[in-house]
Amino acid sequence: MWTPRSWWSVLRDAEQSDPWSVQESDLDIEPGAVASVLGLANGFVGVRGVLDELDPDDEPATLVAPVFEEHEQTYAEGGYAYPEVEERMVPVVDAWRLGWSVDGVPVDVRRGTVHEHRRVLDVRHGVLDRELRWTAPSGATVSLTSRRLVSLVRREVVATWWQVRAEDDVTVTVRPAPGCAHAGDGPAPDTQSAPGPQAPGLVTTWCRHDAQGSSVRQRAARSGRAVAVETAHLVECSDGVAATWDDAPRAAALTARLRAGDRVRVLVLAAYAGGEDTAALPARAHEALAVAGRAGWDELQREQRGFLAEVWERGDVVVEGDDEMQQAVRHALFSVVQAAARVDGVGIRAKGMTGTGYHGHAFWDSECFVLPVLDQVLPTAAADHLRWRHQKLPYARDRAAELGLPGASFPWRTISGRESSGYWPAGTAAYHVNADVACAAARHAAVTGDETFERDVAVELVVETARLWAGRGHHTDEGFRIDGVTGPDEYTAVVDDNTYTNLMARSNLRFADALCERHPCEAARLGVTADERAAWVRAATRMVVPYNERLGVTEQSRDFTRHAPWHFEPRSTARFPLDDHVPYVELYRHQVVKQADLVLALHTASDAFSPEQKLRDFDYYEPMTVRDSSLSAPAQAVVAAEVGYVDLAYDYARECALLDLCDLRASTDGGLHVASLAGAWTALVAGLGGLRHGDEGVLHLAPRLPGRLRRLAFTVRHGDARVTVDVRGQVVTYRLAAGDEALLTHHGEKLLLTAAAPEERRHVPPGVARPAPAQPPGRAPLFAAP
Amino acid sequence: MWTPRSWWSVLRDAEQSDPWSVQESDLDIEPGAVASVLGLANGFVGVRGVLDELDPDDEPATLVAPVFEEHEQTYAEGGYAYPEVEERMVPVVDAWRLGWSVDGVPVDVRRGTVHEHRRVLDVRHGVLDRELRWTAPSGATVSLTSRRLVSLVRREVVATWWQVRAEDDVTVTVRPAPGCAHAGDGPAPDTQSAPGPQAPGLVTTWCRHDAQGSSVRQRAARSGRAVAVETAHLVECSDGVAATWDDAPRAAALTARLRAGDRVRVLVLAAYAGGEDTAALPARAHEALAVAGRAGWDELQREQRGFLAEVWERGDVVVEGDDEMQQAVRHALFSVVQAAARVDGVGIRAKGMTGTGYHGHAFWDSECFVLPVLDQVLPTAAADHLRWRHQKLPYARDRAAELGLPGASFPWRTISGRESSGYWPAGTAAYHVNADVACAAARHAAVTGDETFERDVAVELVVETARLWAGRGHHTDEGFRIDGVTGPDEYTAVVDDNTYTNLMARSNLRFADALCERHPCEAARLGVTADERAAWVRAATRMVVPYNERLGVTEQSRDFTRHAPWHFEPRSTARFPLDDHVPYVELYRHQVVKQADLVLALHTASDAFSPEQKLRDFDYYEPMTVRDSSLSAPAQAVVAAEVGYVDLAYDYARECALLDLCDLRASTDGGLHVASLAGAWTALVAGLGGLRHGDEGVLHLAPRLPGRLRRLAFTVRHGDARVTVDVRGQVVTYRLAAGDEALLTHHGEKLLLTAAAPEERRHVPPGVARPAPAQPPGRAPLFAAP
Repeated sequence: MWTPRSWWSVLRDAEQSDPWSVQESDLDIEPGAVASVLGLANGFVGVRGVLDELDPDDEPATLVAPVFEEHEQTYAEGGYAYPEVEERMVPVVDAWRLGWSVDGVPVDVRRGTVHEHRRVLDVRHGVLDRELRWTAPSGATVSLTSRRLVSLVRREVVATWWQVRAEDDVTVTVRPAPGCAHAGDGPAPDTQSAPGPQAPGLVTTWCRHDAQGSSVRQRAARSGRAVAVETAHLVECSDGVAATWDDAPRAAALTARLRAGDRVRVLVLAAYAGGEDTAALPARAHEALAVAGRAGWDELQREQRGFLAEVWERGDVVVEGDDEMQQAVRHALFSVVQAAARVDGVGIRAKGMTGTGYHGHAFWDSECFVLPVLDQVLPTAAADHLRWRHQKLPYARDRAAELGLPGASFPWRTISGRESSGYWPAGTAAYHVNADVACAAARHAAVTGDETFERDVAVELVVETARLWAGRGHHTDEGFRIDGVTGPDEYTAVVDDNTYTNLMARSNLRFADALCERHPCEAARLGVTADERAAWVRAATRMVVPYNERLGVTEQSRDFTRHAPWHFEPRSTARFPLDDHVPYVELYRHQVVKQADLVLALHTASDAFSPEQKLRDFDYYEPMTVRDSSLSAPAQAVVAAEVGYVDLAYDYARECALLDLCDLRASTDGGLHVASLAGAWTALVAGLGGLRHGDEGVLHLAPRLPGRLRRLAFTVRHGDARVTVDVRGQVVTYRLAAGDEALLTHHGEKLLLTAAAPEERRHVPPGVARPAPAQPPGRAPLFAAP
Repeated sequence: MWTPRSWWSVLRDAEQSDPWSVQESDLDIEPGAVASVLGLANGFVGVRGVLDELDPDDEPATLVAPVFEEHEQTYAEGGYAYPEVEERMVPVVDAWRLGWSVDGVPVDVRRGTVHEHRRVLDVRHGVLDRELRWTAPSGATVSLTSRRLVSLVRREVVATWWQVRAEDDVTVTVRPAPGCAHAGDGPAPDTQSAPGPQAPGLVTTWCRHDAQGSSVRQRAARSGRAVAVETAHLVECSDGVAATWDDAPRAAALTARLRAGDRVRVLVLAAYAGGEDTAALPARAHEALAVAGRAGWDELQREQRGFLAEVWERGDVVVEGDDEMQQAVRHALFSVVQAAARVDGVGIRAKGMTGTGYHGHAFWDSECFVLPVLDQVLPTAAADHLRWRHQKLPYARDRAAELGLPGASFPWRTISGRESSGYWPAGTAAYHVNADVACAAARHAAVTGDETFERDVAVELVVETARLWAGRGHHTDEGFRIDGVTGPDEYTAVVDDNTYTNLMARSNLRFADALCERHPCEAARLGVTADERAAWVRAATRMVVPYNERLGVTEQSRDFTRHAPWHFEPRSTARFPLDDHVPYVELYRHQVVKQADLVLALHTASDAFSPEQKLRDFDYYEPMTVRDSSLSAPAQAVVAAEVGYVDLAYDYARECALLDLCDLRASTDGGLHVASLAGAWTALVAGLGGLRHGDEGVLHLAPRLPGRLRRLAFTVRHGDARVTVDVRGQVVTYRLAAGDEALLTHHGEKLLLTAAAPEERRHVPPGVARPAPAQPPGRAPLFAAP
């Protein structure tokens, strides 16, 4: 099935340049964080940026989105409708690994002599390259060149290309699939021995490997989730090299005797199939491997480049004046794409597929922070994610019924679609996830104009969540209240009338009415009546937005501004994250904000606030927002830019983009903070660029340039048209790059770009003159621009 | 050491009559609940009402207040300052048991033939009597008469008097301490084998028994809490009976060959010492046993009667027209006394010492429901309990510091004094426990006039808790707020300005100021400054009491009346307890009340509300109060009576009193509901009797008689004076029974009783004419009067 030509390729490209790559040597972070930053993934499969050589101390580094185990939830005091199990993603076998030895000694950079060792993540092309020059304990020196890719096009495929070049006469041994603990052939002997409850993991139920490749099957004992992986190895040696296969069933290995200058090359193709239907998985993996094999290495690389070329064409943001940021924002967008490219049926996870942090769960992060970027840059992935939510509606309906509510209630954190959160005040109570999902679906349909998606996916999502809101709130003389919920700020929980929640629910209700109007058949199928729609509209119209008239400030939630201020004193009150030093019972009652909440509402429900109100609200909440969550800075950046604190907005943008490259939260080991990385793009485009989607598809722009930058450039789309926005100094140039015409506004001024008059230049107004409000002590933006 | 004469006594008293006893045959409840109802205890030691014969299937039935084990708390998602261990009271060896056999067959009422079997709890004298006539499998018939007492005077002592009378020639074997699993002599072989974490319990570290008695020592592996018990057996046989002791170290037993008519009698005295100081316990048990032995059985009985005679003289409530209630209210008061008599150093537990329900913990129940009764009936026990709280101030200070607060924060549930609650929204957040403790101390000092107690105990309790409140609340333009707390109603948690909490905190702050004024040296020792006192007074003066002007109703907590009403529909919304069918996240946001909260405030902070306001508030909250807690009915009874719903008040009084006798909550197996039983007394005396303690020691009375009753009579004290209140029909007679004079009011009218004019009669006004509000569907008072 192999044509060796097809994977023969030049490894490094001439055009590769620094702003398009991340070098390991530039990273001053722990090895676990490096493995996240250099990870490759496509949303379905992820391979952490570990070395190629097998290290028996390593945890497996491969993640497959549907593969998780269930763990008993234990509560000191239980309660009705508490989730009984927690789902935890479990790493699967690194079948793509290749054990190799030099003169009989396994290659290990901690032994022998390393002359050069370099790893580079090429984000333009989506590959991880490596170069190693190494003298083995035998005294012989070899050079390794390798390239790894996780296909952004084929969801099952991990491919690795290796080349070893001998500098001395040397014997090189290559052993397939050494990552499989069970080296036997056929059904594994431990098939029946499910691990005990204290040490759950995957059981290897089948393992085979020989000269052609390997097959491994693994299964989680309790959840039943399984993975099947098939690999193929293609070996090519320089002319005259004596290579012999030892095809022993348990120890298949190739031994090649190289003279100085000889090379041996290996392409390892691996295909991972994972899910519930154990019986079907081997065939699915086999088929995926066969198709990838027929395509070949060059084609896999071409596809990868092609996929990313469109991403960069749509989404690249050029930042001049800050090389570190230029590199970071590209790494950030690349990481977002890696988290989302192939999430059909599995959804986008908070850590992408780069680590097991948060147990591999999906949260509202996806809808609120990631999808707005994908709607611009990779709309198919946004649709796939929302289709996944739509598939999980049966669970969400069951959950709503269990809670005593109509409609559907999506989980706070999940893999399967079932609620997996063990602390309801910051889990189930955060009902806003329902509006986040629904509004993301409606927004996706509006931005992309995808009517099929709107009819097949969005209508049902908005209707079922609108039903939830109609039942979850109630009318009083002062309006429609939504009580006892937790908003985005997890330092303030179980409150009444959280403004973010109420405004998102209002949009949700209005979308439901509007989409039922547009899709009457679908609405009828869902049993929507005129009375029900009228009730949605009435609830939306009467939705309470709590406000402190004396302060002129919007309440984060009812009475929030009358809570006690938080005194940032030297003791535990100013040690972060605060919840490591202060109990919830004390945090909740104070005016201290973990993450943008009212400020997030200023962004996501922008139309509900006047510019003056936004400024007052931002000024009020900024000094009490401690940013103990990585979900905070994106909204702070956007709103800071909008109210005129341009440099502060840029500082937050940098924090978002550099979060993982600098391991700012000492948690990158567990995987990348995908929402924050998406937030970097949002901070630049919606924040500094001022991008908003208006009615009738009008694009509103309001660019401003922070002092640090010479230039900010990005692309926006208006239907089929494409407009480049290029801000240099105090001038912005809008240029119609494709399409017939585009209607947009510049700081409120209407501009029509046409093929005849494709370009307009405008002056960029300065930000506000007065200084931005201070953050809490010690909580100025991390890695602020100097 | 023994004088056999001393325990020779007539078993049953002629004066015993039904309203003073509870017969097993009258109880239509499960055996486990019977064991609670027939339990004997003194607050330090408890012996559940099990049969005398050892049943290997039985759990040990003896509880010793300081003996608990620590269990790891497990949280699905942990948080700062969550308690790491849960304390659980562990039953100790039933060393008071006596194994006995007839013709070689162990006595077992499930075998042979039972001709008569009768058990009676005599609450006037504090003993459990038993009569059994039984034909053994051998065909021989014997009669057993036994009496058990747990001394209300000597905290370590459990005594059992046995007599077996032969009706045929028979061999009776008696074996001491058969309850000890380890039958060896000396250090137990399993001393070193601490039980695993899954099955913690007590390890027997020492066991010895012979003809004279037994010694057993047990220890909880993790907590280190230990118990030492010493027993002595005194045997007497009819003249001419051949009795031989087999004194084998592991099988000491007395064998007596009886002819028809012969008797053998055994007195078993047991003394339990328990606590932390393991080394000191055996000597303490030995000493207690020796002293009890010297006193002898008759004296133990005399002491018991004498102790209870004073209780009944002070606290008996005569109820005519409802025999069931008469019996129940005496059993209730007896149970309260059993829970409290000897709690020096250990405190009063929610279940008394009659079961391991709630793991043997003490809650606010003690201060809020039990101590008001004890202040009248057994003030020394109230003082002992409060001294226990005072001893635990170091833990409470540590806890406050851990929470970031000044002063002291008492645990929601505890044995040792450390917080043992695993769900903070209904644990730590229920800060009102601090005001409950402080106000109970101040009230005790005021009611008893015990200045030593006030100086040594009350001042520090009120000061440290006042400091907590001063730090826990904050001033705003509208007043002093206390946010993020949970009041008594556990279906509404983590709210702002809970009225009950605020009013109790206000009393707490005022008591602190007043007691510092009265005890300047003590205040100075505690570092109280004039500024601090001024801050307390200011907070008290400005304390917020939320109120709905439109409804004219006091808010249970801020905005409570604007929450959604609870619709009691046929489905899960009207299945009780609601929290078994509805998640907290939905319960909390609704106007549904688990237990009297605002209505409890109407009782405990009576002065803060006008009569009209009380009526409006009662009417508002009654239809939403589901009484899923046994702590609800007492306050509902008191307030119902006060606002004029006299029959409803009486229905609630019955529910309180009959709760355990009828096992209304199917939880009496775990022990008696001491607070509810105390509430029965409160419902009659403070409710129907209208007793309130006014300024300057004036007693306010406002008796009313429900339709069901012909008569209600009780005694109240005014300093050294004693006044009987005797309501018959529409006339009440106040009579000075002791002392020189007493000042009281009758429905507001002042009365002065003197030795010269010791009696006054007054008309009893009727209740309100209109019907009382309805309870939620299915939640009318249980066992309402017909």
